[in-house]
Amino acid sequence: MSTFGPQIEVAIARIRTEIAHLHAELTANNLVVWTGGNVSGRVPGADLFVIKPSGVDYADLAPENMILCDLDGTVIPETPGAERAPSSDTAAHAYVYRNMPEVGGVVHTHSTYATAWAARAEAIPCVITAMADEFGGDIPIGPFAIIGDDSIGRGIVETLTGHRSRAVLMQNHGPFTIGSTARDAVKAAVMVEDVARTVQFARSGGALVPIPQEAIDSLYMRYQNVYGQTPQGELQK
Amino acid sequence: MSTFGPQIEVAIARIRTEIAHLHAELTANNLVVWTGGNVSGRVPGADLFVIKPSGVDYADLAPENMILCDLDGTVIPETPGAERAPSSDTAAHAYVYRNMPEVGGVVHTHSTYATAWAARAEAIPCVITAMADEFGGDIPIGPFAIIGDDSIGRGIVETLTGHRSRAVLMQNHGPFTIGSTARDAVKAAVMVEDVARTVQFARSGGALVPIPQEAIDSLYMRYQNVYGQTPQGELQK
Amino acid sequence: MSTFGPQIEVAIARIRTEIAHLHAELTANNLVVWTGGNVSGRVPGADLFVIKPSGVDYADLAPENMILCDLDGTVIPETPGAERAPSSDTAAHAYVYRNMPEVGGVVHTHSTYATAWAARAEAIPCVITAMADEFGGDIPIGPFAIIGDDSIGRGIVETLTGHRSRAVLMQNHGPFTIGSTARDAVKAAVMVEDVARTVQFARSGGALVPIPQEAIDSLYMRYQNVYGQTPQGELQK
Amino acid sequence: MSTFGPQIEVAIARIRTEIAHLHAELTANNLVVWTGGNVSGRVPGADLFVIKPSGVDYADLAPENMILCDLDGTVIPETPGAERAPSSDTAAHAYVYRNMPEVGGVVHTHSTYATAWAARAEAIPCVITAMADEFGGDIPIGPFAIIGDDSIGRGIVETLTGHRSRAVLMQNHGPFTIGSTARDAVKAAVMVEDVARTVQFARSGGALVPIPQEAIDSLYMRYQNVYGQTPQGELQK
Repeated sequence: MSTFGPQIEVAIARIRTEIAHLHAELTANNLVVWTGGNVSGRVPGADLFVIKPSGVDYADLAPENMILCDLDGTVIPETPGAERAPSSDTAAHAYVYRNMPEVGGVVHTHSTYATAWAARAEAIPCVITAMADEFGGDIPIGPFAIIGDDSIGRGIVETLTGHRSRAVLMQNHGPFTIGSTARDAVKAAVMVEDVARTVQFARSGGALVPIPQEAIDSLYMRYQNVYGQTPQGELQK
Repeated sequence: MSTFGPQIEVAIARIRTEIAHLHAELTANNLVVWTGGNVSGRVPGADLFVIKPSGVDYADLAPENMILCDLDGTVIPETPGAERAPSSDTAAHAYVYRNMPEVGGVVHTHSTYATAWAARAEAIPCVITAMADEFGGDIPIGPFAIIGDDSIGRGIVETLTGHRSRAVLMQNHGPFTIGSTARDAVKAAVMVEDVARTVQFARSGGALVPIPQEAIDSLYMRYQNVYGQTPQGELQK
Repeated sequence: MSTFGPQIEVAIARIRTEIAHLHAELTANNLVVWTGGNVSGRVPGADLFVIKPSGVDYADLAPENMILCDLDGTVIPETPGAERAPSSDTAAHAYVYRNMPEVGGVVHTHSTYATAWAARAEAIPCVITAMADEFGGDIPIGPFAIIGDDSIGRGIVETLTGHRSRAVLMQNHGPFTIGSTARDAVKAAVMVEDVARTVQFARSGGALVPIPQEAIDSLYMRYQNVYGQTPQGELQK
Repeated sequence: MSTFGPQIEVAIARIRTEIAHLHAELTANNLVVWTGGNVSGRVPGADLFVIKPSGVDYADLAPENMILCDLDGTVIPETPGAERAPSSDTAAHAYVYRNMPEVGGVVHTHSTYATAWAARAEAIPCVITAMADEFGGDIPIGPFAIIGDDSIGRGIVETLTGHRSRAVLMQNHGPFTIGSTARDAVKAAVMVEDVARTVQFARSGGALVPIPQEAIDSLYMRYQNVYGQTPQGELQK
């Protein structure tokens, strides 16, 4: 039954617990309705990640029904939760883990305001300092891609590689976020919705005032290195 | 007292419990205020359905005060709850059950954003993939109809018959949704408000990007057959 | 100490409890922030009403700190709560009770969307059936009036006398609602915000479709006489 | 360990508890997401203030991890919480305490609607009586300033000195509020978001009706002197 050795099994158990609990942040922050949205986390030291099952109520999510997958998105048989289907977005998460080794967590939601920008295929302009801090500039739009092959994963990776932003708005679809850990990716999902909402209402009232690029650069650099108690734990892109 | 035989009585008891509990989803998802909104469910194997009483607080809803009706919307006398008046929308629910045998549940709300589209008599255009998944295209507008005869029920049935959508926005009134089960109809009520809100804000910021029809078709087909753990339980329209 | 005879004292105690509890509906329905908003209720059979103290946290409201006033808005001395100042809107409530004997409850809030219409001095047009049901047509604007004399109370009474609506939007200020009971007035406060929000978003997306006057009349008549379990308890204007 | 004498230590303990608890008002009023936002309070009788640590979850805030600083924003060593970094906005709070001796509390958030006005560098016009009551007129915009020196603090002080408003919208950033106490500053943070939201929606629907200046003056004077149970406890600007 224990197929990965004791050290990896400990890491899997920790990530199962973390991923199950982080889903509560999606509901607490009003990022999801019904069974939508998903969080995954890479198992450190192994080519594995943990993701939510498909179409299960948020109230029923628990460490033991999280699903363990390899980096092709294949469910590892005879592990807890393996009797269920994983999130229908599993292939996109797997593609990100295969192609972005620095990524430890991935989140997808259809949060209202971020998805509204995605339906216009419009990047969110960086007009508030919190965006500069957190995302280092505009939040980019990814290509239109539908489920069924690697096109969503490829669109995420192509858009975010070499970009400061940890969030991409997939056109007509919604936000995907990445992070050094699953918690860091959840933070990005919370923040992208917050700035999408603020800038939506800002612009609906009149012309936005841009932030000079050098101020954006300065804010981003400071925030990545100074904010919080352990800034070194965040994804340094 | 037990007028329907033991098997039907068991089914009635189960549907009473389900309908009472599903009303909590309306409040949890902010679809209703005060005593507005209603959920009903067909009793499998009988020409009966269960619906909420009229004008009762959500906190006071319980299996024993749900009301049992026949498919003409007449309250079955001497059953629990029969001393109260059923929802003022009972005739519309009954009309749907009489004319759409595949429907197992009906929901009605005045949720803010869906009702806003209804006040403009404007269908919600399918510009986000979640809409393609769940509704297979635009959410249609039904006719203006007022309470008092079969005109609301007829408007729902005429609009949704042969349509992929499980939701109709009755003009100047609000959404009605149907499903294979009451829970499936509640899901549709949650999702129609979610997409009504997202597309409202999307369009208020500029031009929407349409989704190609073949992508809509592909998303709808996949979602109806693949998503979740038991897709075969959902209404296949 | 008991200055009003046993029957009136029982009625006062009941209204104190009702008014204290109804304030929780204002917060539950997001109609107020901080210590804003107030509910009052007439004591049946006496020229008295009960109202909230000024500037006290919602969490601290209780039957014993509600304040008993006569119909001039003067606090009845040596009664529970009389050591505190009553709501700064007490004079407006008193004016309504003096001049509209059919009114049993008054509510005032600064709820977001109703106040937004008030800041434009614009009546809410009746474009959704729930408005026709509940208010019988448009929600009217009252005059601009500032605190300090009877002008707010007079504005409420002049606007609502002979009008179907139980809600008035006082210009640049916010909604006041009346009812046959305090609970009925709270319901009107909940509903006016709900329709103010829905019609705000409806119109921001394009042209509204009007409801024919005869349909408005028909909906209003039916709702006042048929809806709920005890329609006769509601204010028949 | 006790470096300030018993009387000041008692005051420090009281302010630690107050500041820790007041952060719950930021989340309860939906003014912050994740770990954003901060409240500080001056220690009466000493050149000290208490502020939140940087990047810590709201659920983990407690009196013992609040951080004690001098009026230059330097953490007082060997006091509870001193092992952590204080809020990244500490320098701005310190600047306010050094330069505005009447200020007992400072709050900063990125609340959605106030920040939307800040992204347009647009003052909120005084079109609702609650704004006249609470802020005495328009809510002003402060200069664009980035973290790293005294420019944020200076911008707050220059904007609010001689102004009735206890709130300033720092351009492209968000609101800072001041008060006679930390609780008074939190109230201002709650109220500025409430009026920012109301006026945003008011204007998006059409032309605003101004309030005559003499009515604004009259409302402000009354509210500062009459409202609530202990108006003399509020900041008299």
